[in-house]
Amino acid sequence: MIAAAVAIKVQFYDLDPMQVVWHGSYVRFLEQARCALLDAIGYNYVEMKESGYLWPVVELHVKYVRAIQFGQEISVEARLAEYENRLRITYRITDAASGAVLTKATTTQVAVDGATSEMLFESPAVLREKVRRLLP
Amino acid sequence: MIAAAVAIKVQFYDLDPMQVVWHGSYVRFLEQARCALLDAIGYNYVEMKESGYLWPVVELHVKYVRAIQFGQEISVEARLAEYENRLRITYRITDAASGAVLTKATTTQVAVDGATSEMLFESPAVLREKVRRLLP
Amino acid sequence: MIAAAVAIKVQFYDLDPMQVVWHGSYVRFLEQARCALLDAIGYNYVEMKESGYLWPVVELHVKYVRAIQFGQEISVEARLAEYENRLRITYRITDAASGAVLTKATTTQVAVDGATSEMLFESPAVLREKVRRLLP
Amino acid sequence: MIAAAVAIKVQFYDLDPMQVVWHGSYVRFLEQARCALLDAIGYNYVEMKESGYLWPVVELHVKYVRAIQFGQEISVEARLAEYENRLRITYRITDAASGAVLTKATTTQVAVDGATSEMLFESPAVLREKVRRLLP
Repeated sequence: MIAAAVAIKVQFYDLDPMQVVWHGSYVRFLEQARCALLDAIGYNYVEMKESGYLWPVVELHVKYVRAIQFGQEISVEARLAEYENRLRITYRITDAASGAVLTKATTTQVAVDGATSEMLFESPAVLREKVRRLLP
Repeated sequence: MIAAAVAIKVQFYDLDPMQVVWHGSYVRFLEQARCALLDAIGYNYVEMKESGYLWPVVELHVKYVRAIQFGQEISVEARLAEYENRLRITYRITDAASGAVLTKATTTQVAVDGATSEMLFESPAVLREKVRRLLP
Repeated sequence: MIAAAVAIKVQFYDLDPMQVVWHGSYVRFLEQARCALLDAIGYNYVEMKESGYLWPVVELHVKYVRAIQFGQEISVEARLAEYENRLRITYRITDAASGAVLTKATTTQVAVDGATSEMLFESPAVLREKVRRLLP
Repeated sequence: MIAAAVAIKVQFYDLDPMQVVWHGSYVRFLEQARCALLDAIGYNYVEMKESGYLWPVVELHVKYVRAIQFGQEISVEARLAEYENRLRITYRITDAASGAVLTKATTTQVAVDGATSEMLFESPAVLREKVRRLLP
């Protein structure tokens, strides 16, 4: 399993008037963990551009299990769930102290050829090779 | 069908380095349409608080169909899909000029008793009555 | 005087836990008015890029006079204060109903040559000509 | 001198279409450093509320010296510049590797009595005492 996690301390600007993290702020948390995972694979934003492909997010799914509070320390883990045809990443946000699950999420990205703007129905070799190097 | 729509002109701050709307910015678009729908029902954020219930978003699902550009004029429609046990709203973002579908989304909210912090498995009467007044 | 104004209805996502607009959300309000002003001049983001110049914001100053509430309707006016050597814009946010001043702000942008990345100490002719066409 | 610093790695969501950090994203960077400073003083958001005072930001000033890039590691230092009548904090963002100054900023907050909503022209004793405990 290829995975990466980031530690985040919830900030004032993450909150909404209900004194908990605004549901839209989670997209930043997920992106931070996704970038850590892509760094581990060696295929983050800069390498994507250099490889000639864009990887737009085509689907986002978030299940908010428990509210998150100001100053709370959370762990956001991203796992590579699928890479051969598209990039599917699953996330789990847990409380850093108790390990309690706070949020579950999934994002899906597809490769788009930077030159033709056409969507690919199979991941380009550059990603498949980078991932396979990390597999047992 | 109970629905409401808002017109939005895409701003510079909505964009990401790929020159299109960042996938996280859509959460603001959806919230703006949702609030217009809740205004139409007469049960927006202020009335929710007065009624003694909080309505946290417990699920978010977004399908990004087509990228959205700087300055593009879009319409975000929110439809009430379910209200008896939870508040389920579906969204459709279209290009204002062509009507082309750009995004589909769903949010789910549940009622939480403000006094006890307990989640309700049936929507409180205040919402059910407000919705029924609008039904044919 | 060259000026433009936009009407904004304050959204839930603009708020902070104190139930008023978060001080960072104002940057979006100002940018929306600035883009309306640049549209009026015919020199917004797209035309800037085509002209070969970038215009980074090098200074931001905001005076928060009165708190802004959920659902409040505000007007954000941007005025061109200086354009010959740099682009200096002043802003005034007022309550749409009463006209009461809520915020004052200033932004300063300088031209950067897109090819050499060098900062210009005089605005390029393209901006000066577009502005002069609008002056009496 | 009372100060605190936070280390931040610039994320994709911080960027704008010019491939550098959007000028509005800095408000989050400053707030994160300010909260670290207020934590050091023992008077952050939670303690402020408990003390019966709100501390709205009434002024923000940012000088953007150098653009900040994706993945760049930065240090954001917040220093207490004034506390007796209002809370004035100055900031300096530097590149973590080279120490080069990237941004300078100032925020000013004033105390507001939570019960009467009146602005105070002198900081309440609770803040003055907490600060004095840290002074030599």
